[in-house]
Amino acid sequence: MRVGFIGFGEVASTLSKKLLSKYENNVEIISSTKNRSEKTKDLCKNLDITLLDSFEEVAKYSDILISATSPYEAINTAEQYATLGNNIFLDLNNISPKTTIEINNIILDSNKNNKNNKNNFVKGAIIGKISSENHVIYLSGENAQKLEFLNDSGINIKYIGKNVEDSSYIKMLRSIYTKGVTAILYEVFNISEELGLTNELFEALSYTEGKNFEYKSKSRINSLVNSNERKFEEMDEILEFLKFLVNSNENSLDFNTKMINATRDKFKEIK
Amino acid sequence: MRVGFIGFGEVASTLSKKLLSKYENNVEIISSTKNRSEKTKDLCKNLDITLLDSFEEVAKYSDILISATSPYEAINTAEQYATLGNNIFLDLNNISPKTTIEINNIILDSNKNNKNNKNNFVKGAIIGKISSENHVIYLSGENAQKLEFLNDSGINIKYIGKNVEDSSYIKMLRSIYTKGVTAILYEVFNISEELGLTNELFEALSYTEGKNFEYKSKSRINSLVNSNERKFEEMDEILEFLKFLVNSNENSLDFNTKMINATRDKFKEIK
Repeated sequence: MRVGFIGFGEVASTLSKKLLSKYENNVEIISSTKNRSEKTKDLCKNLDITLLDSFEEVAKYSDILISATSPYEAINTAEQYATLGNNIFLDLNNISPKTTIEINNIILDSNKNNKNNKNNFVKGAIIGKISSENHVIYLSGENAQKLEFLNDSGINIKYIGKNVEDSSYIKMLRSIYTKGVTAILYEVFNISEELGLTNELFEALSYTEGKNFEYKSKSRINSLVNSNERKFEEMDEILEFLKFLVNSNENSLDFNTKMINATRDKFKEIK
Repeated sequence: MRVGFIGFGEVASTLSKKLLSKYENNVEIISSTKNRSEKTKDLCKNLDITLLDSFEEVAKYSDILISATSPYEAINTAEQYATLGNNIFLDLNNISPKTTIEINNIILDSNKNNKNNKNNFVKGAIIGKISSENHVIYLSGENAQKLEFLNDSGINIKYIGKNVEDSSYIKMLRSIYTKGVTAILYEVFNISEELGLTNELFEALSYTEGKNFEYKSKSRINSLVNSNERKFEEMDEILEFLKFLVNSNENSLDFNTKMINATRDKFKEIK
């Protein structure tokens, strides 16, 4: 079995290690370092992987082709490499349902002109830190179930269905929750600061929300203050997408987004 | 030492047991069952407490007089009994900062006409379930520190300062957080229901939010659906009170309440 990676960062190196340790001589990891950073080259050097001259070759020779680049490169990567070989194309980038649907359409269009008419696109959404025990990769798509065997190598895989966008929906829903909580935390933190009762508040919440509540909350607040514009854009994209779903869907979906709206607006106000 | 209770439910019986077990013959618990329910009478029978003919007598003979009735009776209880004896009057009802300030004013007014001019009012805010290990009672008020010794009997006491309203501020801030989280949960839960991905969402959140996340969240959602009107009123009262603080305070307080507004409005919509 040949597993090819386009992009070779933490995700690719973690997965490679697990696959090599489980399947040893029965797996070959292939990638390319063409035009990639020194950091990527170093990561590859330390692992027993085969480096090819180009990503086109990687795409052609892989049984499973994994896109693990960045959210901004995800569409380009799919356009260039997803249908070059006879393989499963697994996108593991942190992309929205909208981008997932776009990639799916690109692949469907491209396959129309091919004799080989199967949809090989599998979307994977990583929840938690891939390098920690507490991670899971949700997989969805026509052929996603074929990748369930990866579980055997210690990658925590959950197949959730044939609708390719479902795994990115889960990631989006999770994001609505965690970002909303962050918005509330930020608001209540500011009020408690004005009242001079912040330490007492965090302590009081720890009794019911768990011992690491203060640490977790402060890191959420800091991360918000440091990237509120990006988080505002994420919430705005989610709202746009939910609107699009309501307007386009034949299942007459209807969403109440009062808290998401407030979260977005809250993020906008942070200075 | 005589500890008197006005109202004898779970709070009073839990505290009585702890005090009796620690101080044995050095503490006398007094109360009255006059006009109280059969349930209260039963609770009293099972404990070694002295029952007097009236709450006036309880108030007169107590060194510490504890009001543990209900939020609705808190003001009346204070008016009738807080200044009858030479004691500390500890309110443990789940009341808002506004009600705490009202009670404080009642007691200050009443003490003006007394020779004994000290403010004996201590506000206690119970966080968590009093009968569980995970509880704490925040105490604030001029004489609150005098009650810190209760810690020795296994009641988890935290003295937080002389401003009598501070412990109810903590309870209010905590409520803003937990109710806001509930509002977000409710919203994201409804969206995940429409998308048919609720189980997957709860599972995905459990990886980062803890193993009992699903159980806790569903109980928060159920409790919201069953009492959304009361919770709406609570949020509305909090907003009114924060407005009052901004308008009345000499320290030029200013609160941004976008998320609290959204939480209140969300609760109003639930059918």
